[in-house]
Amino acid sequence: MSVLEQAAAARVAAIDLARATRAEKDAALLLMADRLVERTDDIVHANGVDITNARANGLSEAMIDRLTLTPERVAAMADGLRQLAVLPDPIGDVVRGSTLANGLELRQIRVPFGVVGMIYEGRPNVTADAAGICLKSGNAALLRGSGSAFASNAAIVAVLRKAVADAGLPVNTVQLLDATTRDSVKELMRARGLVDVLIPRGGASLIKTVVEESTVPVIETGVGNCHVYVDSAADLEKALAVTVNSKTQRYSTCNTAESLLVHAAIADTFLPLVLEELQSRGVTVHGDARVAGFSDAVVAATDDDWGTEYLSPDIAVAVVDSLDDALDHIRQWGTGHTEAIVSESTTATRRFVAGVDAAAVMVNASTRFTDGGEFGFGAEIGISTQKLHARGPMGLPELTSTKYVVTGNGHTR
Amino acid sequence: MSVLEQAAAARVAAIDLARATRAEKDAALLLMADRLVERTDDIVHANGVDITNARANGLSEAMIDRLTLTPERVAAMADGLRQLAVLPDPIGDVVRGSTLANGLELRQIRVPFGVVGMIYEGRPNVTADAAGICLKSGNAALLRGSGSAFASNAAIVAVLRKAVADAGLPVNTVQLLDATTRDSVKELMRARGLVDVLIPRGGASLIKTVVEESTVPVIETGVGNCHVYVDSAADLEKALAVTVNSKTQRYSTCNTAESLLVHAAIADTFLPLVLEELQSRGVTVHGDARVAGFSDAVVAATDDDWGTEYLSPDIAVAVVDSLDDALDHIRQWGTGHTEAIVSESTTATRRFVAGVDAAAVMVNASTRFTDGGEFGFGAEIGISTQKLHARGPMGLPELTSTKYVVTGNGHTR
Repeated sequence: MSVLEQAAAARVAAIDLARATRAEKDAALLLMADRLVERTDDIVHANGVDITNARANGLSEAMIDRLTLTPERVAAMADGLRQLAVLPDPIGDVVRGSTLANGLELRQIRVPFGVVGMIYEGRPNVTADAAGICLKSGNAALLRGSGSAFASNAAIVAVLRKAVADAGLPVNTVQLLDATTRDSVKELMRARGLVDVLIPRGGASLIKTVVEESTVPVIETGVGNCHVYVDSAADLEKALAVTVNSKTQRYSTCNTAESLLVHAAIADTFLPLVLEELQSRGVTVHGDARVAGFSDAVVAATDDDWGTEYLSPDIAVAVVDSLDDALDHIRQWGTGHTEAIVSESTTATRRFVAGVDAAAVMVNASTRFTDGGEFGFGAEIGISTQKLHARGPMGLPELTSTKYVVTGNGHTR
Repeated sequence: MSVLEQAAAARVAAIDLARATRAEKDAALLLMADRLVERTDDIVHANGVDITNARANGLSEAMIDRLTLTPERVAAMADGLRQLAVLPDPIGDVVRGSTLANGLELRQIRVPFGVVGMIYEGRPNVTADAAGICLKSGNAALLRGSGSAFASNAAIVAVLRKAVADAGLPVNTVQLLDATTRDSVKELMRARGLVDVLIPRGGASLIKTVVEESTVPVIETGVGNCHVYVDSAADLEKALAVTVNSKTQRYSTCNTAESLLVHAAIADTFLPLVLEELQSRGVTVHGDARVAGFSDAVVAATDDDWGTEYLSPDIAVAVVDSLDDALDHIRQWGTGHTEAIVSESTTATRRFVAGVDAAAVMVNASTRFTDGGEFGFGAEIGISTQKLHARGPMGLPELTSTKYVVTGNGHTR
């Protein structure tokens, strides 16, 4: 089937799926989980094909590790589906309601989007995750994973589709798109009217392409050039803890800090502490001229450093003369993901929170907290860095639209 | 200035505007209103230039009436701004909030988008309306009205900008774009990163162009091919009232009914009633073969009729054999705006509400109720027919994004 035919089939499935009760959807999720575990051998075997191809294509060992499925990882995928079954169903939630002056009863209720397209790279476990999140929110999923995981994804989706059908829901609730050609991405981006929303998850270039070329509405996820600003009124112990945690707790995530801005008034005391701590953990510091004075190991920073999402043990460090200079720097180089301030001053934190235009602002806390799990959402589809529809970590409610239901008794204007 | 330069100036204005208090914004709105009234003569004079040009260009009298500003219409624009000042400020509203297990305080608060682009046709009163709604919601506005109203819009915007500046807010909170060339629309659609959201208001072709060509996120408004379905269990008196009101209360609006679907079981009793009533009001009925049997005046309907938003005294009428057939018809031809059912059966209305995929579903009520004013929103930017971000009538909260503010005490992961 072509992508458009698959999208049309998804639309039909979405009609029935929108009417499914929470009990029916949760039963399907639990069956999907059980079947994944039962069919572990088949899935791991299919994954072996992908790994063989990956080695033949010279993929790095880090990439191959991300691609690899073990029985433990399959079990973790199943657990993810079981956790979704426990979460509340967003569908049918009354977002707003009132009785109008003329007696009309107005309710705004959550409904599924209908058909959700996901374009993602790397790990095959995202396949089960995305399918489950879409199903729980009442959406039919069109999954376009990476070519390198195509055999694994096909095996997983075959198991999930059988389970969905056996649970009495439409089999086309979950569909995998051809990942052997770029054409499937292009067709998906032009399927306006058949696909309600497209969510790209992956590298900056994938997201840029989808955002610029898609006629289907897009929820943009991900790129994070996050800053930690250490104010003149910072508690240095907290500043050290927050900076080091934001940078080093994990290097490859979008909520990792990539830049540190230090107020000039405390540079003399704070910079020696933080540079030593970062360098002791193997982090390369790319600093401006004022930072360089504190350590011979500082590499001179260029504009590229201020604008880069390193995703590696590197950090750009600048001294700023004021909170406003920090805000200007962040406005120029930030990506609107997460920005943190460390300060004991309520005036400074209030001004920073108001002045920063980002999905999340941390006050005396690590940038690493911008995460659906940390926020208590239970499931996360990604972190939106756009302002329309959803901003920040997206849970199940962010995968829904709404519908106004207005009930009268023959009312006319 | 080029559109991109104007957009860049709007971004700068938006930074200060985002920090403005409700009191500052309301004071500006009231001053804008007063100044419009004071400067009525100038505005009406500029409008005269547009009207002279319109006559020279052969515009219809109906279009010229829409374009015409009188002192009364200027006063009405001013009243619209005063009413905005009374509405609650959406900015700063806490949408969601909790204290996480680790003591982090999580708040999701409403913030302005930043820069909003509006592309609209016809009436110059939309200019003041759009500027006021954007200002109240903390957004800088880039207004691209129609070429035919350019002199009027320029006069209005000049008055508004002076008032905004005199009230102490950034002058570039309101800017008018060149409407003498299509290039300004194209540049606006490519100003991703400078413009946060684009709202086209106008005819179907304008909206289609913007939706397909814009890289800036778009909120789609308006096309309404709305249906009234009269169920076998309908109260015929209510059915007659709702149908006639939905079709004839006003012909030119997007929430006007364009099609009537009648269940076969009541066609014999209901069709004679409704056809006579509609025809007595000068409505042309385009009917299928079964409808034609009830009146010689019925014009044979083609597929074009099922798919057309007439915006005129015309209605397409079909007999359907079941509620499911009605749902199928609506799925095929509807535009996702407003669909109505008239029925005394709770089973039927429940199934219709669940099965229809539209911004609004009316139960025993006229389609004409889908309106921000009727819903009690106070202000309306338009009616969204897309599923992302906002669906249905949009009030001030729909012109905002959100930001997570997370407050800790040196928290790390």
